[in-house]
Amino acid sequence: MIKQLMEKIDKTKAPICVGLDPMLSYIPEHVTRKSFEQFGETLEGAADAIWQFNREIIDCVYDLIPSVKPQIAMYEQFGLEGLKVYKKTVDYCHGKGLLVIGDAKRGDIGSTSAAYATGHLGKVQVGSKVYSGFDTDFLTVNPYLGTDGVKPFVDVCRKEDKGLFVLVKTSNPSSGEFQDQLIEGRPLYELVAEKVVQWGDEAMDGDYSDVGAVVGATYPEMSRVLRKLMPHTYFLVPGYGAQGGTAEDLKYCFNADGFGAVVNSSRGIIAAYKKEAYQRFGPEHFGDASRQAVKDMVEDINRVR
Amino acid sequence: MIKQLMEKIDKTKAPICVGLDPMLSYIPEHVTRKSFEQFGETLEGAADAIWQFNREIIDCVYDLIPSVKPQIAMYEQFGLEGLKVYKKTVDYCHGKGLLVIGDAKRGDIGSTSAAYATGHLGKVQVGSKVYSGFDTDFLTVNPYLGTDGVKPFVDVCRKEDKGLFVLVKTSNPSSGEFQDQLIEGRPLYELVAEKVVQWGDEAMDGDYSDVGAVVGATYPEMSRVLRKLMPHTYFLVPGYGAQGGTAEDLKYCFNADGFGAVVNSSRGIIAAYKKEAYQRFGPEHFGDASRQAVKDMVEDINRVR
Repeated sequence: MIKQLMEKIDKTKAPICVGLDPMLSYIPEHVTRKSFEQFGETLEGAADAIWQFNREIIDCVYDLIPSVKPQIAMYEQFGLEGLKVYKKTVDYCHGKGLLVIGDAKRGDIGSTSAAYATGHLGKVQVGSKVYSGFDTDFLTVNPYLGTDGVKPFVDVCRKEDKGLFVLVKTSNPSSGEFQDQLIEGRPLYELVAEKVVQWGDEAMDGDYSDVGAVVGATYPEMSRVLRKLMPHTYFLVPGYGAQGGTAEDLKYCFNADGFGAVVNSSRGIIAAYKKEAYQRFGPEHFGDASRQAVKDMVEDINRVR
Repeated sequence: MIKQLMEKIDKTKAPICVGLDPMLSYIPEHVTRKSFEQFGETLEGAADAIWQFNREIIDCVYDLIPSVKPQIAMYEQFGLEGLKVYKKTVDYCHGKGLLVIGDAKRGDIGSTSAAYATGHLGKVQVGSKVYSGFDTDFLTVNPYLGTDGVKPFVDVCRKEDKGLFVLVKTSNPSSGEFQDQLIEGRPLYELVAEKVVQWGDEAMDGDYSDVGAVVGATYPEMSRVLRKLMPHTYFLVPGYGAQGGTAEDLKYCFNADGFGAVVNSSRGIIAAYKKEAYQRFGPEHFGDASRQAVKDMVEDINRVR
């Protein structure tokens, strides 16, 4: 699967994913109003507004990018109606030729992780038939439970040619609280990185492994070390843009081959029309603002790649 | 919320929760057959079988217990159809007077954790209206991202009188890989425990905090230390029964007041009819087997409480 992502990155020259993390507050009033007129101020109405918003953005950017990263929490907050739109968004993106990174940060004990892996990446057996649940191409995974919590995800990746990004060093302010704690002189995230390399050895797909790592853009010195520790691991890099990470901060995430990292931006793209730089588009043309923001992001990142 | 759980534990004399973690392989053939006859070998058929199975078990045990713990992964593996049954199960349990611990192990950066907290414990604003997503009473939370990933859950608990169980020391074989790593001579799980106490200080509800901890039954020596470190923290204890934990292993989880722990059993209760001890009930009466298994579990645990 990572090979497919690299091919799409190569073709678009865009080592990025667009974070489809809609908040109602990001959605222009004319979109929300129309959905509420049709469905009322209900969960269905909110879900419809999110769907209309996502679809317009996808239509405006899909030819420029290799992948999207919907954050499932933003859908889960609306319960079942929200999750229906998550699924609809995944399917719509696939129809547009995009790879989908499900940002779900799942992780549990063995048999439970196996169920998550089945639901998000694999196929579930029902009598003599098999079905896909959410059918994303990649999934983010939390490593706190150790190898037996991660291995079931790796197994499904090998079987179905899918991919993972395991949390190593996250982009948030308090990520260091546990992740940076020193164990025999080395931070915990380096230990996690070593395990990610081990897990990934079994799932090589060309020069890189289908088991990738989440490495925040907000901690560039750490990404430099992690890049060396994990030469064949693809990085999913959150934190660019709204969270404060700059292109300069990303340079260590890439390998000399220009590959090795896929950088996410969510708010900076999907709510671009609200930023001063793109206000000229106006809320009516929020999709065009997102398109311009993608172009600018790609240009910015390719400077350091 | 923890006070409500303690009152129900006191009334039932049962410091337990029943893990509603249905696998299709646990469901008696006559149940599955009927669902498949009605809906075919489809995701709807699987979901219906799970629903019929859950309902029968709940009907047979609800008066004996304070709480249930549905593991959302087991529903997520069937995609949207599975999640519909998760929601239906939560609502049905509420109707029977049970408290529901959503075992979802969510956790992310701040704004994303806020969305999960809203979807599972809180209320979401849609225009001038508010709605609940999954509306569970407690949620399990993963602490790997640190304070800013956990605080949004605590905030919703305070606002809505709900509760959390934060992963501290999990019950699985490789939990030690990261959780037991020594930081200045003390294992990581003790550091997490100290943070749980800090987070919980803001959310006291009587003698205990609404911010609890997951502490596996399979590591009794560790639970002894953790009990001392966290005197006002309620423990959710997985690992009893099928995972190998015994009543003897649980004794340190309880405080001298007889409270402080709620012990989970999933397979041991819901698939009891498959165990030699309960085979006399037969698959037709799987609910009665579960009822007897609950009685035996409660008796077993109360010996050490």
